[in-house]
Amino acid sequence: MDQLALVTMAVLLCSSPLADGGKVLVFPLDGSHWINMKVIIEELHSRGHEITVLRPSDSWYIKADSPHYKSITMNSSGGFDEEEFSSFLNTMITMEKQGVSIWTRLSSEYEMLTQMYMWHRQLIQALEEMFEDTELMQSLHEAKYDLVLTDPAIGGGVLLGHRLGLPLVFNVRWTVQGEGHQAIAPSPLSYVPIPQKQLTDKMTFNQRVMNLLYYIYALFQTWYAVDPNYKPFVHRHFGSDVHYMELFQSADIWLMRNDFTFEFPRPTMPNVVYMAGFQCKPSKPLSKELEDFVQSSGEHGVIIMTLGTLVGQLPEDIAEDIAAAFAQLPQKVIWRHTGKRPSSLGNNTLLLDWLPQTDLLAHPKTRVFVAHGGTNGIQEAIYHGVPLLGLPLMFDQHDNFFRMEARGVAKVLDIATVNRDNFLEALKEVLHQPSYREKMKTLSSLHRDQPMKPLDRAMFWIEFVMRHKGASHLRTESYKMSTIQYYSVDVLAFLLAVVLLVFTALISALKCLWRRSFSRSKAKEE
Amino acid sequence: MDQLALVTMAVLLCSSPLADGGKVLVFPLDGSHWINMKVIIEELHSRGHEITVLRPSDSWYIKADSPHYKSITMNSSGGFDEEEFSSFLNTMITMEKQGVSIWTRLSSEYEMLTQMYMWHRQLIQALEEMFEDTELMQSLHEAKYDLVLTDPAIGGGVLLGHRLGLPLVFNVRWTVQGEGHQAIAPSPLSYVPIPQKQLTDKMTFNQRVMNLLYYIYALFQTWYAVDPNYKPFVHRHFGSDVHYMELFQSADIWLMRNDFTFEFPRPTMPNVVYMAGFQCKPSKPLSKELEDFVQSSGEHGVIIMTLGTLVGQLPEDIAEDIAAAFAQLPQKVIWRHTGKRPSSLGNNTLLLDWLPQTDLLAHPKTRVFVAHGGTNGIQEAIYHGVPLLGLPLMFDQHDNFFRMEARGVAKVLDIATVNRDNFLEALKEVLHQPSYREKMKTLSSLHRDQPMKPLDRAMFWIEFVMRHKGASHLRTESYKMSTIQYYSVDVLAFLLAVVLLVFTALISALKCLWRRSFSRSKAKEE
Repeated sequence: MDQLALVTMAVLLCSSPLADGGKVLVFPLDGSHWINMKVIIEELHSRGHEITVLRPSDSWYIKADSPHYKSITMNSSGGFDEEEFSSFLNTMITMEKQGVSIWTRLSSEYEMLTQMYMWHRQLIQALEEMFEDTELMQSLHEAKYDLVLTDPAIGGGVLLGHRLGLPLVFNVRWTVQGEGHQAIAPSPLSYVPIPQKQLTDKMTFNQRVMNLLYYIYALFQTWYAVDPNYKPFVHRHFGSDVHYMELFQSADIWLMRNDFTFEFPRPTMPNVVYMAGFQCKPSKPLSKELEDFVQSSGEHGVIIMTLGTLVGQLPEDIAEDIAAAFAQLPQKVIWRHTGKRPSSLGNNTLLLDWLPQTDLLAHPKTRVFVAHGGTNGIQEAIYHGVPLLGLPLMFDQHDNFFRMEARGVAKVLDIATVNRDNFLEALKEVLHQPSYREKMKTLSSLHRDQPMKPLDRAMFWIEFVMRHKGASHLRTESYKMSTIQYYSVDVLAFLLAVVLLVFTALISALKCLWRRSFSRSKAKEE
Repeated sequence: MDQLALVTMAVLLCSSPLADGGKVLVFPLDGSHWINMKVIIEELHSRGHEITVLRPSDSWYIKADSPHYKSITMNSSGGFDEEEFSSFLNTMITMEKQGVSIWTRLSSEYEMLTQMYMWHRQLIQALEEMFEDTELMQSLHEAKYDLVLTDPAIGGGVLLGHRLGLPLVFNVRWTVQGEGHQAIAPSPLSYVPIPQKQLTDKMTFNQRVMNLLYYIYALFQTWYAVDPNYKPFVHRHFGSDVHYMELFQSADIWLMRNDFTFEFPRPTMPNVVYMAGFQCKPSKPLSKELEDFVQSSGEHGVIIMTLGTLVGQLPEDIAEDIAAAFAQLPQKVIWRHTGKRPSSLGNNTLLLDWLPQTDLLAHPKTRVFVAHGGTNGIQEAIYHGVPLLGLPLMFDQHDNFFRMEARGVAKVLDIATVNRDNFLEALKEVLHQPSYREKMKTLSSLHRDQPMKPLDRAMFWIEFVMRHKGASHLRTESYKMSTIQYYSVDVLAFLLAVVLLVFTALISALKCLWRRSFSRSKAKEE
């Protein structure tokens, strides 16, 4: 066998699928983000990969023991804290409900910024401890992971990945600086709306002005809450010429938790892989009792209501109004509600502590989904083609629903003004105006019509990174340029200077010529 | 069955795959582009779709009769003319070979521009005739095609598609205005090199200045050769507020004839589908004679040389030099050469009028591919992992090879300076420096490691457009904005004006205050 054949074989061996499965280090974000990450971890596990999860000691969702992964417990990740979150949630709902002054809103915005600052600060402190724990770091090095899988809404996985010199795969919708694409893809503010501001890709002049102002505010948020925590840490550990966002931008694959049945069309990058709906699974049959209840709805069908994992109960007065509205409908209602049983509850409404959301959404009798607008719920509604009635509460929920409203598949109510009458009216509109259902079915058929299932696509690209030790050929390194270079400001300035110089020289020459000929003709005259 | 269920069924029926296959109207570009289009047409045909091809009466490659498509013959498309092309080619080679003055180069550039102008002019004239042929237009309308498939390097298919109100799918690398992405995806000039200029995505300051100047020159080319032909036609037929590029930009799917083993990483759009290598097929065994010849090379292996469909023969002196260089090697050589048999030809070299390129590239004995740098040949070399020696002649060939050279998988020679010695030296370098082969194998493994085959992906998206009557959810409509709006110039100017106004008002107020207090203190003094 000659030398070339040997080289060829070696290369082919390197690029063949990993025979024994890979080793993945996961740095997740707690809370609802973990629900997503778990889906990916379980699928990776079922495909024979070995997963290690870094979890905070005070985690509320990420268990230390699991059949699907090993875990390493670190000091508080600085992520969410269940109690903090619960009180924050209640304040938010009360604020929305009561309607407050601009001043209170501003001060609550400031409080939120400070909270953001503190979360990042705690994370950075936990990471500092971790980086100093030479034994742990040594063991992580020796474990020879193939890649770090992380949610870049916090920076822990990114920084650890770089410290260990491992390829990075993101399970992403947000980075520490905002929406995911904004960190890596050109996002012209003229048609890429800043999320959470209820703007579409088609904006009026005023809206475009607002979009730019929102962008500037987002820069301020970063400057206030993120920079002071990440910058010194990154300078200390990776060199003073490294900006922390470079470390994010160098990720190999961005598994984006959306697609263009949800997102407005916009520029993207070759290493962005859309996996919206990866969490959607084929439905299982309902329990006998639930199926009987659903079937008893006859031709009227069923309404499903749940406000997500975190919000089991609404303020009592709102719950009463909603219950009273439901009671007036011929439909049957299944409502996940853990609070006090509303006195106005009708016979048609079934209260449950937990409901099999996927299986109910997939049921042919389901007519409307009353939801809070978390991405998971919205994706499942799209997947199953069920129109939505929205009661968004916080975070990205308003924005998620705004996108659905813009597509004509959802009606949205404001928690501050919702009452029995407008809730009932909105519900009837979604139930009886066929356009909601038609448009949602179209959206669903667009979403489902893909060359491969979103979860399979995610798996393919994670394993691609294992096989090729990254995906650098898909990743621009333009982020290494300064802003001035990136936007060609230096080049434009240079060319402008040249043009001005040539122009000035020309003018001077002409002047000089003119003066000469003038003085000559004067001399002649004299 | 209630109304909603009926609606649901109707929608589901609409979105289900077409039971009887679709109807596709193809407006191809003649020449080497047709070779690509034919691959797609044949695959569409094999999947049960009905294809109608619009061909120019003076076509050289697009036959009127085919088992795969029906054809409609129109007057000259204004595409290539074989004789014109042949003479142009010879002039180019002679010019490259002899080396000419800047002046000659400029005048030949001008000639080329004029040629471009004429090609587009002929096309527009042919289209004008077509649009006026009410019988033909009526029959095209009545045929109820599902979509128009076209190569937007000429505008015929785009304009016809809009006239017929049909969705558009592009088989694309170039539009009438230049590289495909430039027409729809943000392409920052700081890291997206203007093609054909031998620049990478990592440029020095000087290179970035050149890139911007090249961009300005490309604008000039469009202004000179394209605008005068398309603008009046589009204004006449689609309204005076429509710019012809809008019609291009509104295409549903862009099947891009490259990927990121060939292209430098850059921003892209959701409706761009990469299908590089779609033309690559698994190899068939060689003929007995050819296989015997290849096997006789022993451990040394074989060199393949062909300069593409259009260039069967090189100028005699170059052919002599190349033959003499080949004669000095222990390898066997298979050379597609239709010209005079070089007197210096060695026993190790087999001349053929045509060679089975794919099957030879796939052969394990093949060591080097000497090529001209057409996209097809380069893609096949990547697919089969064979390193390249380049003799680029014209069009995008220099640029294609430049990309391969930048990846370390090709050595490139200049046709103007090639001789026996440097050809032999370059060939030996590619043969014996393992890095060429190693890097090409890596590139090949990256290219082949895809979730689905490029041709299948292309078929999926063409059929997607049939199923959903377009793919508008993947397509930004930002192209409808003016340049000033797109780049937020109006918004920035407005905000700047506001800031200046506030600043001026503040200064005036301060001045006023200062004056008052000054005059008071003066009054007091007095």
